[in-house]
Amino acid sequence: MASGEDSLIARYFKPLATDPGAFGLTDDAAVLKSAGEDIVVNTDAIVEGVHFLPDDPADSIARKALRVNLSDLAAKGAVPAGFVLTLALRDTDEAWLAEFARGLGEDVAQFGCALLGGDTVSTPGPLMISVTAFGRVPTGKMVRRAGAAAGDRVVVTGTIGDAALGLAALRGGAVATALVDQPALRDLLVSRYRVPQPRSALAWVVRDHASAAMDVSDGLAGDLAKLCDVSRVSADIDAAAVPLSAPVMFLAERGLASIESILSGGDDYEILCTVPEERFAAFAADAWQAGVAVTTIGRIVEGSSGPRFLDAQGGAMALTRLSYSHF
Amino acid sequence: MASGEDSLIARYFKPLATDPGAFGLTDDAAVLKSAGEDIVVNTDAIVEGVHFLPDDPADSIARKALRVNLSDLAAKGAVPAGFVLTLALRDTDEAWLAEFARGLGEDVAQFGCALLGGDTVSTPGPLMISVTAFGRVPTGKMVRRAGAAAGDRVVVTGTIGDAALGLAALRGGAVATALVDQPALRDLLVSRYRVPQPRSALAWVVRDHASAAMDVSDGLAGDLAKLCDVSRVSADIDAAAVPLSAPVMFLAERGLASIESILSGGDDYEILCTVPEERFAAFAADAWQAGVAVTTIGRIVEGSSGPRFLDAQGGAMALTRLSYSHF
Repeated sequence: MASGEDSLIARYFKPLATDPGAFGLTDDAAVLKSAGEDIVVNTDAIVEGVHFLPDDPADSIARKALRVNLSDLAAKGAVPAGFVLTLALRDTDEAWLAEFARGLGEDVAQFGCALLGGDTVSTPGPLMISVTAFGRVPTGKMVRRAGAAAGDRVVVTGTIGDAALGLAALRGGAVATALVDQPALRDLLVSRYRVPQPRSALAWVVRDHASAAMDVSDGLAGDLAKLCDVSRVSADIDAAAVPLSAPVMFLAERGLASIESILSGGDDYEILCTVPEERFAAFAADAWQAGVAVTTIGRIVEGSSGPRFLDAQGGAMALTRLSYSHF
Repeated sequence: MASGEDSLIARYFKPLATDPGAFGLTDDAAVLKSAGEDIVVNTDAIVEGVHFLPDDPADSIARKALRVNLSDLAAKGAVPAGFVLTLALRDTDEAWLAEFARGLGEDVAQFGCALLGGDTVSTPGPLMISVTAFGRVPTGKMVRRAGAAAGDRVVVTGTIGDAALGLAALRGGAVATALVDQPALRDLLVSRYRVPQPRSALAWVVRDHASAAMDVSDGLAGDLAKLCDVSRVSADIDAAAVPLSAPVMFLAERGLASIESILSGGDDYEILCTVPEERFAAFAADAWQAGVAVTTIGRIVEGSSGPRFLDAQGGAMALTRLSYSHF
């Protein structure tokens, strides 16, 4: 960091560095204290034009950058402990930075996850925000992708498909046209795209009961395939059981949201987990206490052929695309 | 991550994930074990066209991305514990990725710092590599920028100015011309620019004896000013005592390397630290044992006016530029 950056950092980001280990951002590095528990580390970056749109509000970009990481921590059963931030900027638009820091600061307070440090670099290319987030779990208690066993229930939080359709609404076309007279439905979808809702409140419930878990970021179908692959199992999913929000149902009824686009859309940032049958009652009760809606969508089964999504007649649907791919 | 990325990650980066906490890169997050010691966290990104050149070899780009972070850890007195990597790529040139991973893998082995996880995103812009590195120190023992006191010696490792002149040599012009018949000198400067030498071997010595420390990344003059500022002291530096390599002296003698460009050039990745006089003999002896050259370049003094660089006549030099600034 050089002097121009230093004063910007001090002005906008120092107030977010509320952890003593951040040294008020006056040092080269931060200290993450540990009382012997495991530190869970996750890193996810968002890129302008790929994960957010150039005219998305600065505060929502900041929130998304942090929240996509908090979503991973929650799925791993970890309590947020702090994060570091790399900002690649074309220039220093102070009004933009001020809004960015304001949004980030509100999330720092809401999720109890302080800024520990960062780096600011100039780029001639698109804006990019890379976050590495830290969480704490008791030793050996991080919930893995591996661990699902035949017979386990497959569960998701919240609703699936909103964010991808929010992006479609922002991009115009048929989805946007269908929502012209439905501003409340449109706003719900757009906000789900711009500002994910990490299921941090469910972290302890996942840790106590789930046999495996991950967050849904690239599309439910593809992410479930990854979980099954590393757990060496398969799954039978009842496509009709996948929880949908009111605006997604509105669009689906009008032929504007295929089940395939819903299952592979990505950006959901819900938790996908597997729960042994004998733990499910306690899991559901604890999830209710945590205030997070959970829905059973299927079962883990033996096999290595990849999860099947079954239609109302019990036939396996042919999904040509499982998830979003960067390449 | 989606399937295309997953297979690339598995092929090239899984062999670098030698820590059990990385779960072979098959999970969303990694676990950093702690036996109660402090985890030191540092994050630094490098951008094509800013921190490295588009035609720099892929393996040297990987090494630089990791080493600029290892340099910070060493200056903080920390032993490397692992790192996460965010790669923003325009496309997936497998030959490039293979070379990148090969260079990174050699450094993972050399510095005992395993890959814990990462994220790969596509960008239409310049290549960017963001690393967050972790180190361990006994509780409360991270060496801070703050802590320098009047009377302390100001010490640097290695030599200063090489990397900035290495970049100048790569860019052509008078420096390149002067080195046409001096390939060994040129190669030394270029390698100092492309592949920093983090002073990891000195970490324990810094931790045992230094009152304050940081790495020199943006230029010695500016970095010393930051250390003094946060320590609420000033410094008197003997400009002639600043250690220079043979190729830098060669260029300086020909009027192609001003002391100002040497002091403000950046990319040195040496350790700048302050050592109380009564600790200096032990510090020097331990540094010798660690195999790292250290040079006293001045003294910490009381004051808040910023460090002074003194010429042979004892007069303060007027430096118009202290360090590299991104903005």
